Amino acid sequence: MPRLPQVVIIGGGFAGLAAARRLAKVECEVTIVDRYNHHVFQPLLYQVATAGLSPGDIASPIRWILRKQARLRVLLAYVSGIDSAAKVVKLDGHDPLPYDYLIVGAGATHSYFGHDDWSRVAPGLKTLDDALTVRRRLLLAFEEAELEKDPERQRFLMTFVIVGGGPTGVELAGALAEIARRALRFEYHAVDPASARIVLIEAGPSILPAFPESLRASARRALVGLGVEVREGVAVTQIEEGAVSIGGERLEAHTILWAAGVAAAPLGRDLGPGLDPAGRVIVEPDLLVAGHPGVFVVGDLACFTHQTGKPLPGVAQVAKQMGSRAAANVGSLIKGGKTAPFHYIDPGNMATIGRAAAIADFGILRVSGFTGWLLWLFVHILFLIGFRNRLSVLLQWATAYLTYQRSVRLITRNPDA
Amino acid sequence: MPRLPQVVIIGGGFAGLAAARRLAKVECEVTIVDRYNHHVFQPLLYQVATAGLSPGDIASPIRWILRKQARLRVLLAYVSGIDSAAKVVKLDGHDPLPYDYLIVGAGATHSYFGHDDWSRVAPGLKTLDDALTVRRRLLLAFEEAELEKDPERQRFLMTFVIVGGGPTGVELAGALAEIARRALRFEYHAVDPASARIVLIEAGPSILPAFPESLRASARRALVGLGVEVREGVAVTQIEEGAVSIGGERLEAHTILWAAGVAAAPLGRDLGPGLDPAGRVIVEPDLLVAGHPGVFVVGDLACFTHQTGKPLPGVAQVAKQMGSRAAANVGSLIKGGKTAPFHYIDPGNMATIGRAAAIADFGILRVSGFTGWLLWLFVHILFLIGFRNRLSVLLQWATAYLTYQRSVRLITRNPDA
Repeated sequence: MPRLPQVVIIGGGFAGLAAARRLAKVECEVTIVDRYNHHVFQPLLYQVATAGLSPGDIASPIRWILRKQARLRVLLAYVSGIDSAAKVVKLDGHDPLPYDYLIVGAGATHSYFGHDDWSRVAPGLKTLDDALTVRRRLLLAFEEAELEKDPERQRFLMTFVIVGGGPTGVELAGALAEIARRALRFEYHAVDPASARIVLIEAGPSILPAFPESLRASARRALVGLGVEVREGVAVTQIEEGAVSIGGERLEAHTILWAAGVAAAPLGRDLGPGLDPAGRVIVEPDLLVAGHPGVFVVGDLACFTHQTGKPLPGVAQVAKQMGSRAAANVGSLIKGGKTAPFHYIDPGNMATIGRAAAIADFGILRVSGFTGWLLWLFVHILFLIGFRNRLSVLLQWATAYLTYQRSVRLITRNPDA
Repeated sequence: MPRLPQVVIIGGGFAGLAAARRLAKVECEVTIVDRYNHHVFQPLLYQVATAGLSPGDIASPIRWILRKQARLRVLLAYVSGIDSAAKVVKLDGHDPLPYDYLIVGAGATHSYFGHDDWSRVAPGLKTLDDALTVRRRLLLAFEEAELEKDPERQRFLMTFVIVGGGPTGVELAGALAEIARRALRFEYHAVDPASARIVLIEAGPSILPAFPESLRASARRALVGLGVEVREGVAVTQIEEGAVSIGGERLEAHTILWAAGVAAAPLGRDLGPGLDPAGRVIVEPDLLVAGHPGVFVVGDLACFTHQTGKPLPGVAQVAKQMGSRAAANVGSLIKGGKTAPFHYIDPGNMATIGRAAAIADFGILRVSGFTGWLLWLFVHILFLIGFRNRLSVLLQWATAYLTYQRSVRLITRNPDA
């Protein structure tokens, strides 16, 4: 039997999984490598961070997701580099992995715009570990306030600043406002969680820049209605332990969360020199990388400008469609055919604000408020992986909606972790 | 208004919660202190450790559980000591807490019988953090085996030793066997998880010493049926990284779990000199502690011998009934009355083995097998706190039963954490 072509996929995110699934029909052996054993449904990470869902509700083992696929293996390993001249993927502590075709969906990490020291003070939200860190900080802030005797320090402990007004920042701010005003309301004695101050800072002229102004306005109204201070057009100049500086103003806050910058995974550097300023790998129309034969880059790590002149956004739908296209192109090449260019079909944009409001933009259809929220709920349940997860999430959302409760308010690990 | 008597409860476990609830009817102010913000349903911890349930399914914030109770506050703080002469509870980093009556339900921790260095190698199962540590180790063992090329080291990675044949050890061994033989079975390529070796070691003459021999035998059969090696009457003489010594024999195993010894919380030392060899505080018939006026000790920390001549076991039912009795006695003292002695009513004993077998001992009624399992399921769902938790756990168990799947196979945090 002739040796089958070896296809390696780096990353079990939306792009990597879509590629793996599409390769089921191709005569090849697939290896998918990730540093975590699970795929995370990133659009709902903020719900884990705000104690609405358990990590297990939004994540599934990659091995389990792909269990029915023949000729595929899953490796839990950290990719330390790519040597496209030798056609191998370098793994930490293991033998290098040779490939004939490589699909790189290594994703993105936080960017602190050159201020890497801010990361310790203002954690971001990319992995389950990040979400658990944020959850611990939020819940501990209220606990410490309850034990505090100095009113000024109590106010400090109950001030939360979220930097970045994209969907993650908006959804975090809304969920946090709801916890403080509703879920925790009657459970403290020395402090009133409802008096918590929540500030959302956006450097650009408006929150949710990807949405049309009518929907942005309705999101802004919903946030203000929940008591969130929305500050637009103000840039953060300094973050230190307990304080955020915006221009001349200094905001003192115990909890600072980062939802602003995104940077490509460092692995992209091995696929240069064609990188954009955010470190993303500039790809050809068919997602191949010039100068690196057989290497495709997909998802948040790819800079694809051939469709609109600017890079496509780092969202789940772009990643899925790219993963699928790259895999189809691998299939064509294996059969001796040609690759086809990638074309993104935009299914629309959504964001949710607190308990029962959301905005959704599907081009001609724009909805907000409760209808938007129902639609948001439907779409997110639909795309979650695993029947058990869908049922469980529906159940949690239903009880949260009816009781205003957040079911997963657990502080595990010590606060410094 | 005259100042109400101050009652402090240490610990939000079964004993502490039962005491807090009973005090709702007493004219006093209650403060409950715990180092965690949540109550854990400890009998199901092993299910979190074996990826069957999420931490959020078996734990609820203490604040939320007691939210409807007036004149009660919850503090998240670490109790560093008790000064019963000054009638204060000392808190780490906060002002001491004065009390008129104190109910101490600080519980138990692992005992490594003087070998504290074993704790790093062989983690036990007392808190959610413990359970997540065990889950990470188990899952990583299979992942590392998949990446390993040396067959001998693969066998080493897939060998699991559980020290201690009480209910926790038996339930862990059964659940682990099931994961390996069923849930993971078809998802690995380089190794067959079904070939994992699982050894359960009990130093005493039999596993499950608290059960009658007929039920022990049926538990033993169920374990052997799942492929667990049950070794009884052999004492562990040494544990080091990757190996357990039992007498002259050396068992090499990547994963070693500790379910053997339990020691009273160190806080008990402040309530001496009447301590038993396990460090438990010897209590009077009414649960008061001689020489420490107004101090009651309840739950796993108490050594109560007045009923049977030997200490009552460290189980949930004893803790609940003690907490309730101590609180009732506080109520009597506040009204100028007398305390009543504690009397334990034993509702029976249960343990589950793997997927659909359990044993239950209710004195005249002894059941095992599938009937025992259904009963076990019913009782555990019944005693779980919170409507949402009950539904969620039922849902997970139903899908696990139908699909053989474990829904929470997530490896979070780095392996050394």
